[in-house]
Formats: sequence, structure tokens, C-alpha cells
Amino acid sequence: MAVERAHNLLAALIDNYLQGKNEIGLDPRRVTWKRVIDMNERALRDIIIGLGGPKQGVPRETGFDITSASEIMAILCLSHNLTELKEKMGNILIGFTYDDKPVYARDIKAQGAMAALMKYAIMPNLVQTIEGNPAIIHGGPFANIAQGTNSIIATKMGLTLADYVVTEAGFASELGAEKFFDIKCQYGRLKPNAAVIVATVRALKYHGGVKIKELGTPNTEALSRGLANLEKHIENIQKFGLSPIVSINKFISDTPDELDLIKNRCSELGVKVALCEAWEKGGDGAVELAQLVFETAQACSVCFKPLYSLDWEMEKKIETIATELYGADHVEYTVEAKVDIKKINQLGLGNLPVCIAKTQKSLSDDQYKLNRPKGFTVKIREVEIAAGAGFVIPIAGTIMRMPGLPQVPSAEFIDIDNEGNISGLF
Amino acid sequence: MAVERAHNLLAALIDNYLQGKNEIGLDPRRVTWKRVIDMNERALRDIIIGLGGPKQGVPRETGFDITSASEIMAILCLSHNLTELKEKMGNILIGFTYDDKPVYARDIKAQGAMAALMKYAIMPNLVQTIEGNPAIIHGGPFANIAQGTNSIIATKMGLTLADYVVTEAGFASELGAEKFFDIKCQYGRLKPNAAVIVATVRALKYHGGVKIKELGTPNTEALSRGLANLEKHIENIQKFGLSPIVSINKFISDTPDELDLIKNRCSELGVKVALCEAWEKGGDGAVELAQLVFETAQACSVCFKPLYSLDWEMEKKIETIATELYGADHVEYTVEAKVDIKKINQLGLGNLPVCIAKTQKSLSDDQYKLNRPKGFTVKIREVEIAAGAGFVIPIAGTIMRMPGLPQVPSAEFIDIDNEGNISGLF
Amino acid sequence: MAVERAHNLLAALIDNYLQGKNEIGLDPRRVTWKRVIDMNERALRDIIIGLGGPKQGVPRETGFDITSASEIMAILCLSHNLTELKEKMGNILIGFTYDDKPVYARDIKAQGAMAALMKYAIMPNLVQTIEGNPAIIHGGPFANIAQGTNSIIATKMGLTLADYVVTEAGFASELGAEKFFDIKCQYGRLKPNAAVIVATVRALKYHGGVKIKELGTPNTEALSRGLANLEKHIENIQKFGLSPIVSINKFISDTPDELDLIKNRCSELGVKVALCEAWEKGGDGAVELAQLVFETAQACSVCFKPLYSLDWEMEKKIETIATELYGADHVEYTVEAKVDIKKINQLGLGNLPVCIAKTQKSLSDDQYKLNRPKGFTVKIREVEIAAGAGFVIPIAGTIMRMPGLPQVPSAEFIDIDNEGNISGLF
Amino acid sequence: MAVERAHNLLAALIDNYLQGKNEIGLDPRRVTWKRVIDMNERALRDIIIGLGGPKQGVPRETGFDITSASEIMAILCLSHNLTELKEKMGNILIGFTYDDKPVYARDIKAQGAMAALMKYAIMPNLVQTIEGNPAIIHGGPFANIAQGTNSIIATKMGLTLADYVVTEAGFASELGAEKFFDIKCQYGRLKPNAAVIVATVRALKYHGGVKIKELGTPNTEALSRGLANLEKHIENIQKFGLSPIVSINKFISDTPDELDLIKNRCSELGVKVALCEAWEKGGDGAVELAQLVFETAQACSVCFKPLYSLDWEMEKKIETIATELYGADHVEYTVEAKVDIKKINQLGLGNLPVCIAKTQKSLSDDQYKLNRPKGFTVKIREVEIAAGAGFVIPIAGTIMRMPGLPQVPSAEFIDIDNEGNISGLF
Repeated sequence: MAVERAHNLLAALIDNYLQGKNEIGLDPRRVTWKRVIDMNERALRDIIIGLGGPKQGVPRETGFDITSASEIMAILCLSHNLTELKEKMGNILIGFTYDDKPVYARDIKAQGAMAALMKYAIMPNLVQTIEGNPAIIHGGPFANIAQGTNSIIATKMGLTLADYVVTEAGFASELGAEKFFDIKCQYGRLKPNAAVIVATVRALKYHGGVKIKELGTPNTEALSRGLANLEKHIENIQKFGLSPIVSINKFISDTPDELDLIKNRCSELGVKVALCEAWEKGGDGAVELAQLVFETAQACSVCFKPLYSLDWEMEKKIETIATELYGADHVEYTVEAKVDIKKINQLGLGNLPVCIAKTQKSLSDDQYKLNRPKGFTVKIREVEIAAGAGFVIPIAGTIMRMPGLPQVPSAEFIDIDNEGNISGLF
Repeated sequence: MAVERAHNLLAALIDNYLQGKNEIGLDPRRVTWKRVIDMNERALRDIIIGLGGPKQGVPRETGFDITSASEIMAILCLSHNLTELKEKMGNILIGFTYDDKPVYARDIKAQGAMAALMKYAIMPNLVQTIEGNPAIIHGGPFANIAQGTNSIIATKMGLTLADYVVTEAGFASELGAEKFFDIKCQYGRLKPNAAVIVATVRALKYHGGVKIKELGTPNTEALSRGLANLEKHIENIQKFGLSPIVSINKFISDTPDELDLIKNRCSELGVKVALCEAWEKGGDGAVELAQLVFETAQACSVCFKPLYSLDWEMEKKIETIATELYGADHVEYTVEAKVDIKKINQLGLGNLPVCIAKTQKSLSDDQYKLNRPKGFTVKIREVEIAAGAGFVIPIAGTIMRMPGLPQVPSAEFIDIDNEGNISGLF
Repeated sequence: MAVERAHNLLAALIDNYLQGKNEIGLDPRRVTWKRVIDMNERALRDIIIGLGGPKQGVPRETGFDITSASEIMAILCLSHNLTELKEKMGNILIGFTYDDKPVYARDIKAQGAMAALMKYAIMPNLVQTIEGNPAIIHGGPFANIAQGTNSIIATKMGLTLADYVVTEAGFASELGAEKFFDIKCQYGRLKPNAAVIVATVRALKYHGGVKIKELGTPNTEALSRGLANLEKHIENIQKFGLSPIVSINKFISDTPDELDLIKNRCSELGVKVALCEAWEKGGDGAVELAQLVFETAQACSVCFKPLYSLDWEMEKKIETIATELYGADHVEYTVEAKVDIKKINQLGLGNLPVCIAKTQKSLSDDQYKLNRPKGFTVKIREVEIAAGAGFVIPIAGTIMRMPGLPQVPSAEFIDIDNEGNISGLF
Repeated sequence: MAVERAHNLLAALIDNYLQGKNEIGLDPRRVTWKRVIDMNERALRDIIIGLGGPKQGVPRETGFDITSASEIMAILCLSHNLTELKEKMGNILIGFTYDDKPVYARDIKAQGAMAALMKYAIMPNLVQTIEGNPAIIHGGPFANIAQGTNSIIATKMGLTLADYVVTEAGFASELGAEKFFDIKCQYGRLKPNAAVIVATVRALKYHGGVKIKELGTPNTEALSRGLANLEKHIENIQKFGLSPIVSINKFISDTPDELDLIKNRCSELGVKVALCEAWEKGGDGAVELAQLVFETAQACSVCFKPLYSLDWEMEKKIETIATELYGADHVEYTVEAKVDIKKINQLGLGNLPVCIAKTQKSLSDDQYKLNRPKGFTVKIREVEIAAGAGFVIPIAGTIMRMPGLPQVPSAEFIDIDNEGNISGLF
């Protein structure tokens, strides 16, 4: 909520600025900051606002994104404290002048009020697991369109409270882990000592060519093919200097043969592997895994290194990720993307990390290429600037920031009775 | 928040319905349900959505109101329980078909999911005063544009917990009290036993012609003139069958002469009056007032009667309020308002109570007519339908549902430091 | 065509100016100049242009009027030569700056190119009647929304070529004649010597209460009632210092009794009257009328005087026309109209003649008030500025500048065969 | 003018149809027919119409093209008579239904009225040259965005009146000639007997690398390089079965050496060549050329053959033109273009000729590739349907159908004096 409010406050201040004397000469047609709403609203993707005459704002084209895609969410997760949060908010690029000069949120003095709205949101939430272990939940950007992990503040708080802190960095090694390592760890000066790859028999069989409905049927042949996918993720983690531990998240449909197949392949590769039965047995089911993590972390003192250096050229950073982690042959840029990169360099933002927006369904940028695709080209369509969050976003493929509802929305089935019992949610 | 979410969920479901097969034939140009946002956003008053091609919704003109103007807020405050809330939500008029037939929220099956979002919002908030007395806060529609008082649920809960329940019905006798008596009391079958009119020396001097900056200067002459305003409010309360008690809310600039002037006039009129010094002395300062309220309530068994009966003709209800309470000579309707009333009757909604939208700055519909204006005409510009809340809204004068920010918004001065201290709020 | 081209050239130059540096600070939201098209296009009444990014113009709300409503048409008809035409084109008010200062066509150097497009259009067209008499046709603004008569150039050309020049000034004495006398004659320094009122038995019976389908049935009673309408037009012409001649345009359904009724009433009033049978007999049928016109014109040397003086206050001009010619009791102005008049005076345009836009179906501004309405109020909704043409346009009632097509447009029935024969036109 | 009127009449009928019952279910978002205006109007490229409520049309996105890009112009040029013209107008694809079914102009009965507007426009204009020779001018679509030559009616009329008819088919062999041969000749069953390639020393030097400002300087070296461009056009004409005659259009800056260079190369290639001095000497300067054309035409009886057959697959037609005439290696299609071709085949329009929209500045689709480019790929961005004209339009590169005015439009300098003398045109 605070993220939505702060985001939309900036939008309101922008339109109010346009309505006023507009000393900076902010061009209504070049405003890039949109509004957000926590609703699936396809009809708000592309709108015109400010209609109705001189007292009703300035007519311009804009739109709404879904709240979770807000740059404010990324800023929240990459700030160490309120002062830095406020500074980053001031750095948000909101658009360009008639002369094509950049305009930042600080230019219209928005950052103070925006940061004030985050006063409570900046504090991590402490919750507990069923077994009573503490867990900190704070911030949730998706790794396909944003940087994918929780806040630096939460991680640092954890580090002051416990000997070991585990961070979930969703969407596999080339998205979640890459962004955790290259963006969050570089910004937060964090040095992880171990990395766990969560694997499932079902997912690897899927990558081996089995249809979703048939994933419950034992199929060691398909599993064997799909192991190529796991191997790529193992290699990816190793590129960051870490020794990955493979955690097999056990499902009841898994057979001993299948489980053995994964274990054996890991052994062949010299990679530690543990069966994780936490879903079934709670903490007891993860003891073996925890032991391996402990050993690995102990063995590593300064092993972690990011994949790229911030001072590399923009194209080199993108191409390194695409070829090293995705397995692409090379990278192609549209004319628009080239113009964007040129502008980024002109704005002095060339040294920002890159946060590639890409489908999570494939190692490549094509969701239909399963397993370990090879011989493909990654196409960068455009490169957006998140100057506040502190990264740029090369868009690989088509990424939608505002979903639509299905023809028959589930809302039609949701109901509540007089006692407050809600039905129809699933 | 829940109000905003439920409101915008309905809007999203409407546009999703338009995007689908639209079996009902809902005309995008005749959709009257807008969106709401809790922000001063003049640029969102008049917008076009659904642009960008067949996959991005249906192009149509619409806008955002401020959240507090939402019909959902009125529904929340006029429902007895979740079942009734859901039913009222289903009754919301969302627009008309190509053939000009009405379409309600229930026609697109929206009410269940909307009500589910209100699961927690329907429960009143219990807070305490500085002296530890319980107070229930629940719902806050403004009395100039909506029905002006808190929820029926909160009042009923109070009645089961205490001997006496006091309801604040803001914006004077002709707005707050009128809507409390005629709408909330009729819907909630509430029978108030007493009514307190809060008067101040300063406000009455203002109605007597004193400028705001000079209200601190003693001026019995102007106060004497301004008492005509108080007298009208006394008469208005008496029209509902109740004996009003005047509570003089004491300010430090008030002189004994001025206070006496009010007291004496009340005595001449046979109206009970008490000095209220609660601001200065807490509960002790309101003992005299409380005693009068107690006595009055005891003396009344079935004294309350609403000003009008629901089965009256729409025009008669409007004219009765305007002439009896506002002091108008008569009521004029624009062509649009006449068409609206005709449509309301066709829709079978002619027996709903009326919730006139009018400036709170004057007893008339002209904010510049102070004191007790006479010989004026009330002009009804249009009549909106809040079929869910269960009233119609005759608009007297120009009422703005979405404010704008000033040229220099206060957000520019708001700041927060690293310890979370916010400055610049006032 | 030239009118449409010149009109739309100015519009294109305005949007091109907005796209450029816009040194003047022309506010896109305050541009009042629209585009025109010679097509019934309701969907173009209210549009948004300039969408699609910084290279595609500036987004703004505007619309299309039908070509005949163009101010260029009025300018063409009120200019004496190309130089004056060009000057008037330069005087067109195109909108206002962000600071609410007026902007004229000359400020963006549009008048030269616009006038160049009128090079041939400024020359009157000479045609001949069936009997071979010369007639000049040049310019055709409607008298309900514009100034209603042909060009000054055409009239002046006629005056150099013939002893007597007749001008058609359509839509009766209070619209066509009033605007001919007060606008065209004052601008062209023309001094008409005679005025003919064309009356028909059918129209007067209609004003007497007969339905259109029954106008063919003899009805002296209704005709007698309807003569009040003719009397008002006679009085109106007399107010301009001229002695009107009533020409009864004979229809085959007219009876001798009906014709006598009109003649006798005119005689009682001391007004000359002639039966005109030109439709049936050609020039021979109009000899009597021509003789009366000749006599009247000879008898008058300097009898003509306009109804008002240009230096009167704007309201006085409007009210004089409304009370003297329409027969109204008084004139009411909306808040918008008052603001418009104030702005007109501020712009130094207070001494322009007024060209009231009003229905031609009634002497009043209400098309349903037939015959000689009395005791009514004329309501001025707004006042537009035609600074190029050189008049202001008070709008009385609702005037539509862009008609729509009917549900089944006649275009569906129009066809052409291979020989070029067109069918379905009527 | 008639083209503009007929085009916009169809647009008005479409919006009127949407405003009515819309029995067909034409989707406002899928209407592809735009409006045209004969003005450089960038602000009209992308607009929204139908705003302002249910009586003002249906809101939808659309735009204006410049009149010369109208499909009506192409239809006029490809029809043999009024009946065929009307039929082709009925075949215009105006959009799609909500169910994605095609809707044609005939479905809303527009063709009759549209054709009626063309009654006079269908007749060719006969003009004469300075020497008194007859020339027929009729229709003028550009060959970069349309089919590039004058009307079939004009050519057929010429063939009945003279022994030899010459058609100008502008924009070189791969655009003007290709479309003349493959579209106009196939539709009009015309069999040209000879083809003249107009070459200039200046243009060939330009293709040889000389800058425009230096084209007046003798430079046989560059000319020699640029001859490769001429050779490609010679080869292209030969692919249609014709023996091209090269006409060197002599400029005063040409040197004998340069002229000889061209002549000699043509001789080496066995191609007839003549110096044309018509600019300097009138008809006498073209006698040699005329003689060669006469001889060539006599020598050919049935030599002409189109490049492709209409029943080929769409991609094969496109690729044949691109590889054979442009000299491309192969053709790439965007996803959109592939979808378009699929739809064209579904609509049964796969057997239409192709009218590729491409820059006229290069043999390739990249205006910066001069001379005779090799080893390039032609990219088809989308494929438009001109079902009325009877061809499809593969778009190679970015083609703009509505130009904008320059920052300082020439209109600012145009003026006219009182005698009608126009200045500032050049």
C-alpha cells in the first residue's frame, strides 16, 4: 500500500507541476512515470488524462502498471535506511524536457513527501514459521521484471540477529540468483558464502519433454534428458565463485530411481546434494541440507565474486549475462534499444547494473525453448531506466506490466456469507 | 483502503465485461461508475481509457473521484450486516445498455467479491479518549456530498454496549442532521431522543458579518445579528420533533458578554443551553451539557419524526427540505435534472430518500449567502442515482468530487529524516 | 472548397506552431479554432488530436464543424477586396496563451497563405435566370448561426452594373434582415432604400396553429390569428426606417378569401402589398411587386438607419435586438456568457456588431413558440468571438455546428450506373 | 477533391453505422479505414474521435492520411468504367467484426454514393504541351506507397486515339515500372511493346558517390562506378521481356566525355541509347529517341510478360520482386507480417498482386544504400490490404502516409496582394 501511495503521489505531483508554471519545461509527451494500481486492469494500460479544459490538467498519454512492478518497490529493497531511500526517490527519472533534458523527482521536490509515506513500510516484518523459527518478510519484486529479492534492510537485520541468513532469490540461477548476486550483493556489499539450488524431479522431467499432466508418472529417461537444465544452473552458480548445493525438494510422486538419478549425476559432477523433505517432516526433513550448507559456508571465506564489474560498458554487461548464464550465442539490439543505451550513457548512467526483464519459463528469452537451449540470439527490444532504483532494464522479449482479467474472472465466483466466510477463492 | 479496493474492483470488472462478449449490451458511453483514488488528482477527473487496440479494453471516457466520495463508503455506513452490504453492492447502478436499460453490479456478478474485500472493514474500530472513555469510529462520508454520518453497525453496537450513544452528524442541521435523521435513522430504524447544536461565538459573529481575521475581537453587535443563524438551526431541529440543546463550545477569545448574549437568546426561545468547556477541562467541562442531554432524552419517549415520508414524490421531498430547512422560496430544476427525475421514477427508485449535495458554507446553495438567507431559489442541476447506497443525490450548485493540488503543493515541504521524524506537515 | 482549405490551413499552422518552439506560449487547451469538413460527421464533433508521441503533435481536445459554419465564409462575405480579406484573416482569434492573452492568426503569420487560397474564391459568380436575367451568387452563410447574406463584393459589383440590386437576406426580419442591416450594411456602408417581406398563406396559417399536413385546407380563422406574426415582421422592418412591401408568394392551394385577408390587413396597417406569381408566371408575375419596390425606393432618400450604434455596450446591443425585434421582455446571461462579454471588452472588441445565433423557427429563442410570442426571456448561453469576421456571436439556445447523419443515411440509396446516371438523390 | 470526398464519405458512413444498431458487429477498434485531408497534418496522424457521450458517435482511435495515399485514388486508376469502379469501392475492406470477420464497404451499402461522387472525376483530363501535342492527365498515386501510374481509362482512351501511347511510370524500374507491368498491365490487359529508361549523368554520378552539391563538376570516375545502377535497371526491364531504350536526359553541366561513357557502356551491353534534348530543343530534341522507340516497338509483337503469376503464393511474389529486381539475398517477415499474410490467405485474397511500399531512394529498402546494393535482406514489417484497389501492400521499412510541416512552414512566406499576385511560393 505505501508503495502504491508513494508511487501515485509522484504521479500526482508531476501532473500538478505540468498544470503550474512548469519552469523546467517538462514535456507532457515525454513523461515516463506512470501510475500503479493493485488490480488487473487491461483498460488502464493505455489512457489519456488531463482532459476537460485548462482547469483539469494537461492532456497526455500515459497508463497504469500493476503495483508490484513499481520502481518504488525496487528502491525500498535496495536502500539501507530512510536517508538513502529518500535520495533514491529523488533520483527517479520522471521524463524529459521539450529540449530532451532529463527530469528527476528531486527537480519537482517530491522525494521528501514520498519518503515520509514509507516511514513504516521501511521496517521489515518479523513472522514465524509453524515450528516457531523467525522469518523476516520485506519487499517482493518479481525477478522476471524487477530485481527479484527482498530488502537489503531485512537481510542486514537478519545478519545482526543470527549466525546464518538464508535469502530466497526466486526464478532460478539466471534471473533470481543473477540479480541477487550482481545487484543486491553489489549494492549491499553482501558476500554470500553458499548457494542452494532447489531442484524437483517433476521440473526436470518437464524440461526433459514430459507434459504437465503426466509429470506424476515415473520416467527416468525424460528425467535424464532434463538433467541438462540442472547442470546449466550448477555451472551458472559456479561462475559466481560459489559451490552450489543441490536440494532435491521431494514430492510424493517421486520414485527412488528418479531421486537416485539426480543424486548420482550430482556426484559425478562433484556437487553436493541433499534430499529435502521439509514439506513432509518440517525442520527434521532439512537437517541433511542444513548440514551441507553449514559445511560449504564454513569452507568458503572470500569465494563470491559478481559476474561483471559496474564500470564495464552497458553492452558488455548485457552480453556477458546472455552468453555466460543464458547460454546465448550473441545479443541483438533493436534501433530503439541502441538509442536507449546511447541516452543512458549520455545521462551518465552507464555504470549502473543491468536488470534484464526476461521470461522465467526458459533459460533463453523464448518461453518455448525448454531444458538447456543453445545456438540462440537474445533480442533486446528497449532499455528502460530505473535511475532511482539504480539499474537499467533491458527488455528481452515482450514483458507485460499490467495483466488483464480472464473472460470469466474468478471474482464472479467469490462470495462471502453473513459470518464472514469467504468462498470461491480457489 | 478496503473501500477503494472494492470500488475499483467493480470498475475493473465492468471494463472486463465490456472486453468480453458483453451479452447485456452495456454501452461503454453510458457507464456511470468511475474509479477512485485517495489523492488530489485533477488530471484524473476526465480521462479516456481502453486505448491501444482490441486487446487493451474498450475506449471510453471516464474519470476518478476521490475515495471518500465513493458510494461504497455510503453502503458501508448504511448496512446492518454483510448480507445486506452484499445486497446493496449488487444494487449499485453501473450504467445503461445501448437500449438505455439500467445495469446493476449484480448483473455482472460483482457483489460477492466486492463484499469479501469488506470482511474486516465492516467491523467498527474501538478507540479510547484521552480520559479512557470508549469511542467507536467507523466510516466517514462527508455530509456535503454524501450522507454524512458513521455506520449503522457502529451505532447499533454502541446501543448494545452503553445507555447513551452520541453520534456526530457534521455540517449543521440542514445537512448533517437532516441526512442523519432522514436517511440513517429511517434506514436503521433509529429513534434519537435528543439533539445537541454546537454553537460558537466566533461562528455566529462570522455570520453576523465579521471577517475571519477579526473574529477574536469582542463584538456583541455582530454576534447579535448572527444569532439569526442559530435560531434557524434551532427551528430546523424542532421540525424533527426534538428539543434541541445548544452547546456553546467555548473559545479563549470569548467574552462573558458574548456568552451571555447567546444564553439569553436561547432562554427567550425556551431552548436549553449549556457552556461546554471540554476543550479546556476535559469531561468535567461537559457535565452541565451531559446533564441537559440526559434530562431531555428522558423526557422524550417517541418524539422523533423524519421530515418526509419515503413514498412522497421526489420533487416534494426535495422541495420540503429546501423550503423548510434551507429557508428557500422555491426550487428550480434544469432540463437535465427533470430528465434525471423522470428516469429515477421509471427505474422504480422514486421512493428512495434524497441526499442533497450542497455547500456547507451557507444554509442556501450559494456559499456567499451567510447568516439566515431568505428569498432565494435552490437550483437542482442534476440528480444522481446511488441505488446501492439507497438514495438519490440532487446536486445543488457545483460540487467537485476530485480536488486538485495547489500550485505549490504542501508535499514540496514535507520531509523525513533518518530517524523517521516527519516535518512540514503543517 | 477554398473556404475549407483556408480554414484547415490555419488549423494545420496552429498545430505546427504548437509542435515547434511556441514562443508565444499558445496554450493547446485554449485553442478555439477548430477544423471544418463538408460532411455530416457527428463523430468528429469532439475529438483528441496530436497523439502518438513527441513527433506527432501536441495532444489536445478539438473538433470539426461543418464547412458552412466557418468564419472564413463570413470573412469572405464581409470583405471589400483581397487586402481587407487578408487583414480580416489575420484578425482571426485562434486561442489564448497560458497567461490568457489572445492569439490571432497574424501572430503565426497565417493570413498571407490563407488569402492566397482565396484568390479565385473572392470573385463573384455570375449566373442567369431562366429568363436570362443576370444574378450574382457569392457566399452563403446561414442566418441562424452566421450573418446570413451574400458578399459585399457581390452587392457592390451589382451596384456598378445595374440601377437596382436586390439582396436575399434569408430567415425573416429578426435574423436575416437584422444581420443584413446591422452587420453587412454597416460594414459595407450600404443604404438600402426598400425592403420586401415575403409572406405565404401557408406559413401564416402554420403560425395560426394549423398542422403542416393540413396547410392545404382553407382556414381563414387560423390565417387571421397568424397575421400577428406578419405584423411583427412589418414592425421590425419599420424600426430600421424603411417602409416594407409585403409580397404574397402565391401557392396553388391559396384561396381568394385567404389572399384578401392578408391584403386587407396590410391595407389597414398602411403597408403596401402585392401578389407575387413569379413561380407560376415568371417575371410577368412579379411586375406589380417590382412596381411597388420601385416607387418605395424612389420615395426614400436617406431613410435607412441601423437598429443600434456600434459604440453601444455589448449588453445594450443584445438587449435592443431581443426586446425590439424578438419581442422579449428581457435577456438573461449565464455565468459563462458574462465572463465572455467581460473578456470581449478586455480585448477591445466591445464595439463589434452582434450576430446572435438563434433558431429560425420562432421569433423567440424557443423553436416551439410560434406566431408572435410575448412575455419571454432570451437566454444567452455564451458569446463567441469572430474577430476576423468582425462580430461577436451571442448564442441563444443550443446551436449545433456539426450535424449527424440519420440512422439510415440517404447515401445507402444513392447509386450511379455505367452511363453516369445518378439515382436515389431524393 | 472527388477522391477526398468519396474517401471521407465512406468514413462518415462507417461512424454512422457504428452509432446505429451495428447489426454486423463491426468492432470500432478494428476499423482500418481512416480519413484523408489534402494538408500536411502530423497532429491528425493519431487521433481519437466520437467523444462527448452517446449522441456524438462511438469513441475510437483512428487518423488522417494525406489524400494522395487514398485507396480511392488507386481504385480510380485501376477501373475500366463506373460499374467496375463502384464494384471495387464495394470491395474496400473497412475493418473487422468483434469476431474478427472482414467487413467491406458494400456491407454498409456505401459504394453507390461513393461512386456517384466520382461521376466527373472518372473522366480523363485532356491538356496540351507547349508544342500543341495532346496529353492526358488522370490520377496520380505515388509509386513508393501506391501503384504509381495513371488510370487504365486514360491509357485505353489514348490507345483509341493514337498509334503510340507513352505512360510515365515514375520511380525507376523496381517501383514504377514493376507496378505498371505487374499490376496495371495485368489488370488492364495491356501489353507494352517498349520501355524507356530515363538516365541522367547527375544521378549516376550521385550513385557513384558524388555529393549533391558537386554534381555539376565533371567526374567520369564516379560516373563509371554509378553505371552499375543503370545496368541493374536495364536488367530489370529485360526480366519483363522487353528491350529497354536508355534515354540520356541531357543537362547543361554534362560533358561529352560523360555522355560518351554512358553511350559506350550501353553499346557494350547491346542496349539502344539516345541523347534526349527535349528540355532544350522541344520535340526536335527527342526525335532520335522516338525513332528508337518506334523501331523497338515494331520489332516486338508479344514480348511482354509479367514478373510473377497472380496465383503464386504471396511470399513467392514478394520474394521474387525482392531478389530479382531489388537484388536482395532474401526476405524477412516480422511476426505481424506473417499474421497479416495468413489473414490475407484466409480472406481469399492470396491471389492479389503485391504493391510493395519501399523507399524510392535506393534499389534496396534502406534509403542510404546507393548504386547497386548487394547482400542485403528486405524486411517486411506488415502487409496491408487494399481489397478495393485489388492488391496487398507489403511495407518494407517505415513509410509515412501523413507528412508534417517543417518548423518554419513555407506558408509563413506566402502572400497575395490586392491584384491577386501571389508571392513566396518558391
